[in-house]
Amino acid sequence: MKVPRISEAVVRRLPVYLRYLNSLQALHVRTVSSQQLGEALDLNPAQIRKDLACFGEFGRKGIGYEVNYLIEKIKSILKLDQKINVVLIGAGHLGHAISNYNAYLKDNMRITAIFDADPGKVGKKIVGLTIQALSTLSETVKEMNIRIAIIAVPAEAAQAVADELMRCGITGILNFAPVNIRVIEGVRVHDADVTMELHSLAYYL
Amino acid sequence: MKVPRISEAVVRRLPVYLRYLNSLQALHVRTVSSQQLGEALDLNPAQIRKDLACFGEFGRKGIGYEVNYLIEKIKSILKLDQKINVVLIGAGHLGHAISNYNAYLKDNMRITAIFDADPGKVGKKIVGLTIQALSTLSETVKEMNIRIAIIAVPAEAAQAVADELMRCGITGILNFAPVNIRVIEGVRVHDADVTMELHSLAYYL
Repeated sequence: MKVPRISEAVVRRLPVYLRYLNSLQALHVRTVSSQQLGEALDLNPAQIRKDLACFGEFGRKGIGYEVNYLIEKIKSILKLDQKINVVLIGAGHLGHAISNYNAYLKDNMRITAIFDADPGKVGKKIVGLTIQALSTLSETVKEMNIRIAIIAVPAEAAQAVADELMRCGITGILNFAPVNIRVIEGVRVHDADVTMELHSLAYYL
Repeated sequence: MKVPRISEAVVRRLPVYLRYLNSLQALHVRTVSSQQLGEALDLNPAQIRKDLACFGEFGRKGIGYEVNYLIEKIKSILKLDQKINVVLIGAGHLGHAISNYNAYLKDNMRITAIFDADPGKVGKKIVGLTIQALSTLSETVKEMNIRIAIIAVPAEAAQAVADELMRCGITGILNFAPVNIRVIEGVRVHDADVTMELHSLAYYL
């Protein structure tokens, strides 16, 4: 299916829909209305219908959306129907916490390698993965065909890590370090900086 | 200043501007153009001017924005000119990692209390804060006038924690647990779920 370019806001809502739909599927719920989606996710049902209409007509009047079908469609749009290997840089508390999400990253996306600059950590295991030395990053990224990386290193090390990741051919970065990372054309960064999340939450107080 | 209701997309970009402006301020840079902001943050300069115009005219033709002034304005809009105490629930690897952001949460926002359900953790210290028992949550929230909470507990415990937080009067929740949390009217949830961040990143591959 050819998908038109959609706005970032929509791309950010699709995983929210997917998470809720996965919960419904686990409970064997077979259909869901935009009304019900709206109530559960605190979104406007008209907005939800508009979002989902971007990709073709999935819903049926009076019945709503078929949960299994909608899950498959959203997965396909988000490219989660392909195998996507993710590399995690940083094996501190944050890296450890992020690895724990692997249990929820079902489907075809997985953190498949963890790296740390600290020689004292190299060789130890986190959630089943052996921590590797940064010197072997390039090799592993190529071998495992990794295109997404998570940066979970201190702020002062983040840019150097990002530079190295880009040299290895990474094109998507989820950045937990509380700094702006400069990237080259064609590389996308999503910031998962806790301070920024809290700052935007404060607005609504 | 009376601020009109602005879109969530704008509210989410303001902390991004603020983070970059703080870096400029640290380097004693005094003015910045929307062009320069756009290049540094990979955003359209016209978008930036439009965002900032929501709150009044801050920029000057040919000079740009005064960094210090813009920082003050954004802080005021995000209510970061008041003291905001934050409570963190969950003192595992994730809680520990989140506490480390306290160093970057300068201004008036701070994680001021940490709670955990595990009696074995209560009394221990993380980044200078003593882990407290959940039974004393209500008391601490009232005493410290806390309105924002961070949920960093396992998925299966998240809803019960959110319910307890709402009973204590919390109105803003940053949720790291990979589940949808149901909240009452007037309470706002931002999801910081790693799986969702990775899923939206996959779209751009």
